[in-house]
Amino acid sequence: MSHFFKVKTLDDVLSMTRNFDPADTERVDISDAFSRILAQNLTAPGDMPGFRRATMDGFAVNAAATFGASESTPAWLEIQGTVLMGQVPDFELGPGKAVRISTGGMLPKGTDAVVMVEHTQTIDDASVEIYKSVAPLQHVIDANEDFSSGDVVLEAGTFIRPQEAGLAAGLGFTTLPVHRVPKVGIISTGDEIIPIDQEPAPGRIRDINSYALSGFVQEAHAKVIRYGIVKDDPDQLRAACEKALAQTDMVLISGGSSVGTRDYTVEVLSALPDTRILVHGMSVSPGKPTILAKSGTKPVWGLPGQVVSAMVVMKMVVIPFLNRIQGYRQPKPVMRVPAILTRNVASAQGRRDFVRVMLENGPEGMTAKPVLGKSGLIRTMIHADGLLDIGENLEGLEKHTVTQVILL
Amino acid sequence: MSHFFKVKTLDDVLSMTRNFDPADTERVDISDAFSRILAQNLTAPGDMPGFRRATMDGFAVNAAATFGASESTPAWLEIQGTVLMGQVPDFELGPGKAVRISTGGMLPKGTDAVVMVEHTQTIDDASVEIYKSVAPLQHVIDANEDFSSGDVVLEAGTFIRPQEAGLAAGLGFTTLPVHRVPKVGIISTGDEIIPIDQEPAPGRIRDINSYALSGFVQEAHAKVIRYGIVKDDPDQLRAACEKALAQTDMVLISGGSSVGTRDYTVEVLSALPDTRILVHGMSVSPGKPTILAKSGTKPVWGLPGQVVSAMVVMKMVVIPFLNRIQGYRQPKPVMRVPAILTRNVASAQGRRDFVRVMLENGPEGMTAKPVLGKSGLIRTMIHADGLLDIGENLEGLEKHTVTQVILL
Repeated sequence: MSHFFKVKTLDDVLSMTRNFDPADTERVDISDAFSRILAQNLTAPGDMPGFRRATMDGFAVNAAATFGASESTPAWLEIQGTVLMGQVPDFELGPGKAVRISTGGMLPKGTDAVVMVEHTQTIDDASVEIYKSVAPLQHVIDANEDFSSGDVVLEAGTFIRPQEAGLAAGLGFTTLPVHRVPKVGIISTGDEIIPIDQEPAPGRIRDINSYALSGFVQEAHAKVIRYGIVKDDPDQLRAACEKALAQTDMVLISGGSSVGTRDYTVEVLSALPDTRILVHGMSVSPGKPTILAKSGTKPVWGLPGQVVSAMVVMKMVVIPFLNRIQGYRQPKPVMRVPAILTRNVASAQGRRDFVRVMLENGPEGMTAKPVLGKSGLIRTMIHADGLLDIGENLEGLEKHTVTQVILL
Repeated sequence: MSHFFKVKTLDDVLSMTRNFDPADTERVDISDAFSRILAQNLTAPGDMPGFRRATMDGFAVNAAATFGASESTPAWLEIQGTVLMGQVPDFELGPGKAVRISTGGMLPKGTDAVVMVEHTQTIDDASVEIYKSVAPLQHVIDANEDFSSGDVVLEAGTFIRPQEAGLAAGLGFTTLPVHRVPKVGIISTGDEIIPIDQEPAPGRIRDINSYALSGFVQEAHAKVIRYGIVKDDPDQLRAACEKALAQTDMVLISGGSSVGTRDYTVEVLSALPDTRILVHGMSVSPGKPTILAKSGTKPVWGLPGQVVSAMVVMKMVVIPFLNRIQGYRQPKPVMRVPAILTRNVASAQGRRDFVRVMLENGPEGMTAKPVLGKSGLIRTMIHADGLLDIGENLEGLEKHTVTQVILL
């Protein structure tokens, strides 16, 4: 039955993120909200700031009293007092007067601007010369100038960076509604795969892929549950899939590198209740033998067994689906940097090629140097700083081309 | 005494990372090693792989038997059997023969290459036609071709990405020596600052900065301990500093935005045992009133109280010091992307300016549009995707300049 599936392009596959929904919502303490995705719009419960504040150290004034002031013709003002931090000034500015104020202080009634201390000279305790005029609201943040009560300050789907957390804290949110952190189940398959704490006999290798794939999941701020190593046996694989599907939001089947395993991975997935195969093969290199199924509401992946292919598919294909489940409104863009290619790189038309490169600073800018070595060597991924992205319509990229390298 | 300090350039300050040492070393389970920094060189305890493996599905052959094979003149070989995954083949290749093999299978004695299944046609159960010649070691990874026993596979100071974790797992490391995760203490100061769960009276604001600064620390994979809010009082600040220095690896004093606080922050720090002031003012905007002291072996920072300044200093100055403590050999480069400036931006010579910009995709590439709004507004950081970096020797950047924008 697998023969009915047409190989999909990368863009075809990525458009299928729409077939899946974001994880449900929970409220977390704001200290735990960094790198999470906001699940509801956040509305300001009050003005921010709640009062007119100084943004510089200096003197709060009525701006009009400084008009025309300069080094040669300073304005002369009487010092009326000092604003205490955190206090409401209990006086109103008198005509021809100025009030000492620090950054963050509340402007007294009758003042509408702050003259920076650098542009003043105190003559004595009672008077100050102003060398530069200020406009109304200069060096001041007005009440509600940042946000007004009722403003939507952050939208659902926003990734919470430090500034978003700071803003939410400033508005008094001690908890935030965010999408639950997805759990990703990883099942390793293959008669040749052994646990990493065992010594491999000839013909066997340790379970590299589970750990490399876990890294991508953790890098994306999601949780990993490993379901160990399953032998090349459909019944064992079915049992592991059912368990993982019951406990996680997305399942990765790593390996199944032998032809037989690949064949029965599709059969095992097809036979699961309420499950459809969406992708069976992609025109992507490395990464062609990738399988994607939708089981109930959840994505299940059959990933290539070759470690480099598995990592490229994880980075370029699987993580966007994870981002979707995490609650990103838009797929999170992969980071790219421009670099000058150091030699010709061939590629086949009709295939999206990702080629490992090392990035180096050269006299004319960053250069991208293809990593030598067979594609199955993990050391090529260790040496790589990024991936060239060669589109389906190209037969390669020429030396000296400036290209956007995906960072690894 | 603070008047003896000359304002430092950003590069002067960053060079002072050398005054601090990486955190000590601990061993962690490999599952917890992602995003940590390796503390010792890692040496391969054995060859990787331990045997000659197929990297394609097909037929293991003696390459010489395929020389000259083509579509029109295929080579004809007898099928000797099948390599079972995870097993040592218990036979040696006979002349004129080929062996079925899957990706990852162990090559039998007498074989040195694999013909891809796509380039073969089985005639019957006993014989196969080969349509393409292979070179010795083609579609094969030789024993030790990835790494040989005794090779240094990862160097101390390496950031552990997914591939590094996979490699270490493949070599049988179940734990890894990494630098301890640094703890960063955050002390908020200012009579006007209140806890975020309280309703601010006029003149007071919630403790935005602690949460924003925490975000940067967590983003960098370090731990935060918050020491609450300290009033504008030297004795309280000294007590909080002593406590934080005893419990953490780096201390941030946030705020002290009033002139008075800034003055006594330097005095309090200078009076701590074994403490030197290294920086008192930087020619960086925003961020000028930054203080750096070395207390014992630890950095202590006095950060600007203005929230945007504090965030810029955190990103551009403090995080490189945290990276140093985390064990990075080189300062971790900040991510930059090229973008076309949409309007002229002025800057003062002798000052390193960081200007908030929004990044947008335009017809000629990414554009950087300066964020409007007063510098003290946190919403300017919410709207910003990045920072323009305007060097000390420039009076600004002109519209249409292609510039490297630092990502926020």
